[in-house]
Amino acid sequence: MIDVPAVLAGDRLALARLLSEIENDSVAGRQALNLLFPHTGRAHLIGITGPPGTGKSSLVNQLARHFRQDQGNGLPPRVAVAAVDPSSPFTGGAVLGDRIRMMDRSADPGVFIRSMATRGSLGGLARATAGVVQAFDAAGYAIILIETVGAGQAEVDIARLAHTTVVVEAPGLGDDIQAIKAGILEAADILVVNKADRPGVDNTERALRGMLKLAHPGPRVFRHHGRLESSKSLSSESDANMRTDKQTSPAAVWIPPVLRTVATDGQGIVELAAAIARHRAHLQQSGELAQRERARLRNELDLRIQERLVHRWRTEVANGRYESMIDSIMKRELSPEQAAARLVKD
Amino acid sequence: MIDVPAVLAGDRLALARLLSEIENDSVAGRQALNLLFPHTGRAHLIGITGPPGTGKSSLVNQLARHFRQDQGNGLPPRVAVAAVDPSSPFTGGAVLGDRIRMMDRSADPGVFIRSMATRGSLGGLARATAGVVQAFDAAGYAIILIETVGAGQAEVDIARLAHTTVVVEAPGLGDDIQAIKAGILEAADILVVNKADRPGVDNTERALRGMLKLAHPGPRVFRHHGRLESSKSLSSESDANMRTDKQTSPAAVWIPPVLRTVATDGQGIVELAAAIARHRAHLQQSGELAQRERARLRNELDLRIQERLVHRWRTEVANGRYESMIDSIMKRELSPEQAAARLVKD
Repeated sequence: MIDVPAVLAGDRLALARLLSEIENDSVAGRQALNLLFPHTGRAHLIGITGPPGTGKSSLVNQLARHFRQDQGNGLPPRVAVAAVDPSSPFTGGAVLGDRIRMMDRSADPGVFIRSMATRGSLGGLARATAGVVQAFDAAGYAIILIETVGAGQAEVDIARLAHTTVVVEAPGLGDDIQAIKAGILEAADILVVNKADRPGVDNTERALRGMLKLAHPGPRVFRHHGRLESSKSLSSESDANMRTDKQTSPAAVWIPPVLRTVATDGQGIVELAAAIARHRAHLQQSGELAQRERARLRNELDLRIQERLVHRWRTEVANGRYESMIDSIMKRELSPEQAAARLVKD
Repeated sequence: MIDVPAVLAGDRLALARLLSEIENDSVAGRQALNLLFPHTGRAHLIGITGPPGTGKSSLVNQLARHFRQDQGNGLPPRVAVAAVDPSSPFTGGAVLGDRIRMMDRSADPGVFIRSMATRGSLGGLARATAGVVQAFDAAGYAIILIETVGAGQAEVDIARLAHTTVVVEAPGLGDDIQAIKAGILEAADILVVNKADRPGVDNTERALRGMLKLAHPGPRVFRHHGRLESSKSLSSESDANMRTDKQTSPAAVWIPPVLRTVATDGQGIVELAAAIARHRAHLQQSGELAQRERARLRNELDLRIQERLVHRWRTEVANGRYESMIDSIMKRELSPEQAAARLVKD
């Protein structure tokens, strides 16, 4: 069983145990999350995504270090990192071992790092990441960095668990600007050209600014409408509501800044942290924070509804009937669509 | 309406119209696919995936050209290309325009290219790709290349629509071997180091062979068991069946070859096409072709079942009730898990 009061009190061992239960989607993990959920909603969630080879891990390390030091007033916030690799079959630190060792050497009890990976369902990984983030939040980590290794839609979807999304690029990745796609740029609140001491940094920044213009041709008032559409909301009314909200708050315009960093020696980290703080303030003042929070939680609810629907259906249908449908499809007697219609009655 | 006999007769305009209906998931598209499905199952599906900047598009072009020329006996097979970009919001050719113009110049009526993209649901893109591939198959395209731009789990899942999966890498992409992940290597039937005239090609090939060993430590007999697990089958019995099948056919061991190509001038294309043909023969002789076909169609059936379950649920639940659940979650009165349990009764 999970010791929920210990997690709330900041016990690292209890937290680590809880994270494993969440990743395994166990009953104990679900129950603990239900008890912890009322204590969530305080942390600022920062997503860091971008193609491989851009130095995201170094950037995340430097940011974590910065947040732990650079505080004028009182105790620095505790910082948690969820490092998510949707294409890796390893979990718990095997892949990101070097980085974890590096952080462990600093032995800062105010930093907690969890690496997560799966070769299984993406929906499962998104669900697990949402749970891990909630556990961090309830345990009192005021800043949560969600790092996703990769450059595809799946990674962006996971980065969208965040309030502030940072997209990282670097000079000299491949021939073309393909390394970052328009769909990813659209999710970016802040753009970073890391490894900015390398040749080609001007070209990379120019290309990013050009694509940014392409991704946001007009005023950015409808931006969140696009976000919500792609989060596949199970409710059709919500998009329309959201659009109205946005139209009544024209102050909610954020132009994503393009920053340069050299994470290996800490250049530009102070400016990046300042941009993140500015974005947080913008979200609060414009009312967007509540909207993102709602979209985020709606997304999680939809994932869990879908899981439950599939689970319920699976217990209802006889396995032999399902397999005989596959036989019919193999023989081309039924199309997959026709078989699905027979298995799921309207 | 879709002119199904015209599609079957090879009419390109009718096919193009059908593909749009499939992408829109219209009733006309679904009906046409039901009628076309009995005519599918003849094409060889070849997935080409890998990180951005590896020159996949050039490789696909060269392969298409090769298949159209290099045939000793009779007419060359017709070749179709589905170029899928899960992170791009554009569809129908906008993003991959340069490549399409390049192919159009050859004006070969035996080649059909369709670029597909979405910023929406990944499940929707996988469903649309499966439909487009079926349309090509029914229309008599004997070779179908499914190109996915990207390096994440989503792209691999789409590549898994194929019978033969080719994973492409190139020298000098970033600092580390991160550009290709273990989870992607595991899906590879053939590995290609493209841009092999570049410095660092030996290092890249060595790294790939090392990771290949890591991804396939023992004999590859259980490989498909892993594949099926990650395809999230809705049936629990099937994995066990598959495992038994594999154990009774120990001949089914395929060691993924590592090839070098320079797609820009055609180097290594003949060897790559030969490796694809060898893999096809291996699939047929070992009985794996039928197994992959079954896993592929099961996957598609599961996608459609899931869509129907969500659709049916959506028509049953009152929208006000769903929104009031989100309100409760926002107020932290209910966790997403608790709200899902109330919305979907066991």
